[in-house]
Amino acid sequence: MSNQNSKNYFSSDFKLGILGGGQLGKMLLYETRKFDIQTKVLEASKDAPCRIACDEFIIGDLMNFDDVYNFGKKVDVLTIEIENVNLAALEKLEQEGLKVYPPTKTLKTIQNKAKQKLFYVDNDLPTAEFSRFAYASEIEDSIENGGLEFPFVWKAAQFGYDGQGVKVVRNFDDLKGLPEGECIAEEMVPFKNELAVIVVRNPSGEVVTYPVVEMEFHPEANQVEYVICPARIDAKVAAKATEIALKVSEKMKHIGILAVEMFQTKDDQILINEVAPRPHNSGHYSIEASYTNQFEQHIRAILDLPLGSTESKVAGIMVNLVGAEGYTGNVVYENMEDILKLEGVTPHIYGKKQTRPFRKMGHVTIVNKDIALARIIAQQVKETIKVISK
Amino acid sequence: MSNQNSKNYFSSDFKLGILGGGQLGKMLLYETRKFDIQTKVLEASKDAPCRIACDEFIIGDLMNFDDVYNFGKKVDVLTIEIENVNLAALEKLEQEGLKVYPPTKTLKTIQNKAKQKLFYVDNDLPTAEFSRFAYASEIEDSIENGGLEFPFVWKAAQFGYDGQGVKVVRNFDDLKGLPEGECIAEEMVPFKNELAVIVVRNPSGEVVTYPVVEMEFHPEANQVEYVICPARIDAKVAAKATEIALKVSEKMKHIGILAVEMFQTKDDQILINEVAPRPHNSGHYSIEASYTNQFEQHIRAILDLPLGSTESKVAGIMVNLVGAEGYTGNVVYENMEDILKLEGVTPHIYGKKQTRPFRKMGHVTIVNKDIALARIIAQQVKETIKVISK
Repeated sequence: MSNQNSKNYFSSDFKLGILGGGQLGKMLLYETRKFDIQTKVLEASKDAPCRIACDEFIIGDLMNFDDVYNFGKKVDVLTIEIENVNLAALEKLEQEGLKVYPPTKTLKTIQNKAKQKLFYVDNDLPTAEFSRFAYASEIEDSIENGGLEFPFVWKAAQFGYDGQGVKVVRNFDDLKGLPEGECIAEEMVPFKNELAVIVVRNPSGEVVTYPVVEMEFHPEANQVEYVICPARIDAKVAAKATEIALKVSEKMKHIGILAVEMFQTKDDQILINEVAPRPHNSGHYSIEASYTNQFEQHIRAILDLPLGSTESKVAGIMVNLVGAEGYTGNVVYENMEDILKLEGVTPHIYGKKQTRPFRKMGHVTIVNKDIALARIIAQQVKETIKVISK
Repeated sequence: MSNQNSKNYFSSDFKLGILGGGQLGKMLLYETRKFDIQTKVLEASKDAPCRIACDEFIIGDLMNFDDVYNFGKKVDVLTIEIENVNLAALEKLEQEGLKVYPPTKTLKTIQNKAKQKLFYVDNDLPTAEFSRFAYASEIEDSIENGGLEFPFVWKAAQFGYDGQGVKVVRNFDDLKGLPEGECIAEEMVPFKNELAVIVVRNPSGEVVTYPVVEMEFHPEANQVEYVICPARIDAKVAAKATEIALKVSEKMKHIGILAVEMFQTKDDQILINEVAPRPHNSGHYSIEASYTNQFEQHIRAILDLPLGSTESKVAGIMVNLVGAEGYTGNVVYENMEDILKLEGVTPHIYGKKQTRPFRKMGHVTIVNKDIALARIIAQQVKETIKVISK
């Protein structure tokens, strides 16, 4: 990249476009402020979080060709904060010379979970066994013919998000009510850890990885409770996970952030679960813990700026704030003051007005020089704050 | 504070008002997002930095009684990002029950430098000797009568900001062209360090201090080049500076942030230079280096929330980005990419479109576990980036 180009990013002529106006977009927009980058956001909901953090907020449908295409014509670099966008429009924009990061090709591979799995197989990347079905109704036939066995994990090929579109199927009853449409049935992997590695690449080919993080699950509810950085795992396992994440990134030739979620099996194999080509929940800890947080890093990458250090200043643990069971309505954050009294605690409230059970309402980061102490405080946070309704 | 009240801060009914829409306000607004606090800003310039970071941006004159009073009636807690605001309006709002932080009384003491100096004297707080004059023209008489000797520092009593309203006077010639109006003539203190301590207090009486920082000056230009945290000074001197800053805070009964700037004299005396009752340049390093940055801390304090840890994760050094001499016009940040390649470097560009010599255009923070290495990188940053015009 020439010096002249780089200067343009810091001038008022340059416009960065973001498809999607949700919370990830908002956190990305904070970072554009540090660099004084002019931004435009396309989003369907006029009340979306990004509306007050960007320079221009345009209402439009992310799945509509014209809305995305016309938006793309007004910006110099285009990125996403959600994968479900109109790819035909992105492809045309790319052909016409627009810098689209992640590239449309990466999004095409990722947007459809069946295609994503085939990509791993084609590229000799380790992932759990699976079968692909054009319609969910074909699953039953496959079981009856002996082609598939209980239990397995059903995943909708498209538009799954935040736990939707995924279900553990243990018997024929569990199959009832599954949405029609393309899907996969994936082998249930008995894993001891779920890990993630964030890989970042810029168009010049510079690549960096963040430390391996570990998702700690609730022993009974099978729900991620803590994202812990660095993962408390063997250095060899961490090296293997990093190597596989780098290989995914290399094969996908992605630009920007790629969050690679993996299983560490009982016998220390690493299997790729899925990837996200954007800032990701598994990297939120980086706002408080890392030298360069994932949002700033994504901006650096898509603008082809030098990438920043991915090392941590201190250990970081993230706790997701989800709506408590039994409460639906105007949200109240109970005992917020009590968690603010704890060492190294930073809440991030996403500003959604209504809560409902398990809705993602925010996250809390706990940082500490001592990871064991951070883990104790994280548990206190988890047990203290409650997202309820009034 | 009751639990019920605290919950209100995190509801859409609660409004935080900020007087002033500049860069400090913008950095404060970033932090309100983490807590999802609704904000209104009053500011005269429609293009001010805060316009895209607050929920409601109201155009008005900060020195106009009605503008400030009417704005105050629409918010639940009122704070400032600049000291020069209409105090009569604030006083009336306070009498009518509004929470105004910093309190009007603190602002009254600080807004006028002569009053501020008298406050130190009245409260037995160490500060450089000074004389007060109702008009600058009286200074000459005082010198001729032997009441004042060259050299001294002339300071306008009001509306000085960012080096304006301060002048070293060495002879009669230097007196020419000084603005009329109330001023002070202050003894020139031969100091070896300029230090600052940020003290934070909430209405419940909780008080915390940040580590002592050191301003390193250019050996010839007598201009602050680096703010270094922690200051590389003797622990006894640091303890004394902290003690004096705490005493200022206690006597002023301020709420929110109070940045206390001090001189360390050649014989290790500490003399108070001046104070700012708001987030301050000397605390910008805290965004990257501290467990709780000064902007989040100010919000915690004025909402009477528990205060966060003021400790540092890593050492931090701040370099101010000012317009280079000889350049006036549309700003260009030369060699920005080169500084992004350095370890632990975060630029903060304020988004001003026009540069002029010495105009404050942004700052850069350098963090590192090793303060000596941070200092070397800070110098590279300083010598590399140039704020010029095209």
